[in-house]
Amino acid sequence: MNMQFRDVAEAAKRIRPWIRRTPIIRAQGPGARPVVFKLEGQQRSGSFKLRGALNKLMVLGEAARPGVITASGGNHGLGVATAGWFLNIPVTVFVPSTTPPVKRAALERAAADVRVIEGDYPHAAHAAQREAEQLGLAYVPTYDDPDIVAGQGTCIAEMLEDAPDVATVVVAIGGGGLASGAVLAANGRRVVGVEPFGAPTMHAALRAGGPVTIDYIDTITADALGAGRVGDLNFALCRDGLDRVELVDDAGVQDARRWLWEQLRLVIEPGAAVGIAALAAGLLDDDPGPIGIILCGANTDPASLA
Amino acid sequence: MNMQFRDVAEAAKRIRPWIRRTPIIRAQGPGARPVVFKLEGQQRSGSFKLRGALNKLMVLGEAARPGVITASGGNHGLGVATAGWFLNIPVTVFVPSTTPPVKRAALERAAADVRVIEGDYPHAAHAAQREAEQLGLAYVPTYDDPDIVAGQGTCIAEMLEDAPDVATVVVAIGGGGLASGAVLAANGRRVVGVEPFGAPTMHAALRAGGPVTIDYIDTITADALGAGRVGDLNFALCRDGLDRVELVDDAGVQDARRWLWEQLRLVIEPGAAVGIAALAAGLLDDDPGPIGIILCGANTDPASLA
Repeated sequence: MNMQFRDVAEAAKRIRPWIRRTPIIRAQGPGARPVVFKLEGQQRSGSFKLRGALNKLMVLGEAARPGVITASGGNHGLGVATAGWFLNIPVTVFVPSTTPPVKRAALERAAADVRVIEGDYPHAAHAAQREAEQLGLAYVPTYDDPDIVAGQGTCIAEMLEDAPDVATVVVAIGGGGLASGAVLAANGRRVVGVEPFGAPTMHAALRAGGPVTIDYIDTITADALGAGRVGDLNFALCRDGLDRVELVDDAGVQDARRWLWEQLRLVIEPGAAVGIAALAAGLLDDDPGPIGIILCGANTDPASLA
Repeated sequence: MNMQFRDVAEAAKRIRPWIRRTPIIRAQGPGARPVVFKLEGQQRSGSFKLRGALNKLMVLGEAARPGVITASGGNHGLGVATAGWFLNIPVTVFVPSTTPPVKRAALERAAADVRVIEGDYPHAAHAAQREAEQLGLAYVPTYDDPDIVAGQGTCIAEMLEDAPDVATVVVAIGGGGLASGAVLAANGRRVVGVEPFGAPTMHAALRAGGPVTIDYIDTITADALGAGRVGDLNFALCRDGLDRVELVDDAGVQDARRWLWEQLRLVIEPGAAVGIAALAAGLLDDDPGPIGIILCGANTDPASLA
């Protein structure tokens, strides 16, 4: 699998009719650094995950027509459900019972068949894969897939089209889908990944020389970044293309969310705030600017800011 | 006073270094109408009021240097305080004691001398004007002023630069500052004003043939649109240039805020939601599209969406 910028460009062309071109805002970040924010929380479905889902379903083509199955506690499920709705493809989402209420409610409102599975994400994923095999339907992976990766990369490509002066791209890492897409889309610019201390999947993988499973996830970003293990493809792309991974704590994440409300009146979910938290902690002080930060999701309860 | 588009263009050039160029998003509004949203809640100070305040202080020039005084229970006060901070001009804001806590707290955090006056807005305005006279300082009016009007118009001019295909511009009306700026900036496009039934100041003025005072203000938008009386200049510009005023109720406003969160993950204040409420109520069905809606402020408590 030798992925290139061209894969992202092709995905962008493919999914364009269905996505919202989310805007950028140029502002001063914490510490007065010039920052370009990509407002991807304003994307349809509330996160960038729609991009990868659309690209995957469109590449699947006829194979997706009878319906697809996926497992997700949130943004990916909403993305696949929304993509299926646009493309007239039935979607079944297996949802772990540990999913936070706001995302579970959103999934239940989406145009998908939702099955709640007792337990954590791995239980839901296992049940979903088994069901897909039994029914002979396509299973839509969350991140370890070239079409998903290329789709997520379109978010970064758009930002850089609108702000070609961005020198460092900052992305949150859960399973590595967005980060590996960023590596492809950044076209030589520096890409820095940020993870919570409580779910350091890529950080651990880069130290170990390959994906490792983090059994104990403990962070307020878990509903978005709690993958527990990066994908093989994502690891390979990030090992070669990522500058590094920085780690932030939950208090910094919550401060970052409040900063974004105070300064820009934007409500984002915890997982999307790790980049600002890294900036505020001084972890990007030596990176060239302007810094481009993807505010990648806003599927949260606005009251959770308090 | 013969104001023209040129006044807006000059204001735009003047204030450009200090404002944030807020983005637009193209989306489907309620009823699937094509809508261009101008995200002015993401402006510094949290609303468009910074624009008029900056233009006024910059035109005042040396006369503003010793300090300025204004009266406001919210966005205008935040706008003047922020403008004064940028331009190194001391600002005193007289705040009515009836101001909602979230705006009063924001004003107290802003770089201004805040004086809370027992009573409603007219009491605060009276005290502020008397103080300005006694101290020989410039008083910054809220809307009945050509420099304020030209400044507010820059918000609409920016939207139309970014989306020249907008055929109908929709603005909220309180005292008429934004609406009269829109009339100048729209360059012949249709401009529709929207007010709450509980504070129909321009609606009443157009019927009466001149500004009238609405004594009984009763609407959740009162903190932004509760001016009680449109300005003479604002009336004159709107009488000649506004297509009409539509009225919406508070339930529609709250539904509109929830719609905007559901669809675009944006939290705006009640006064900024009247345009979407009008669209959802079918009041813009006969206007040419795309519809351009200014989401003009976001100084609110995110928890108030629930």
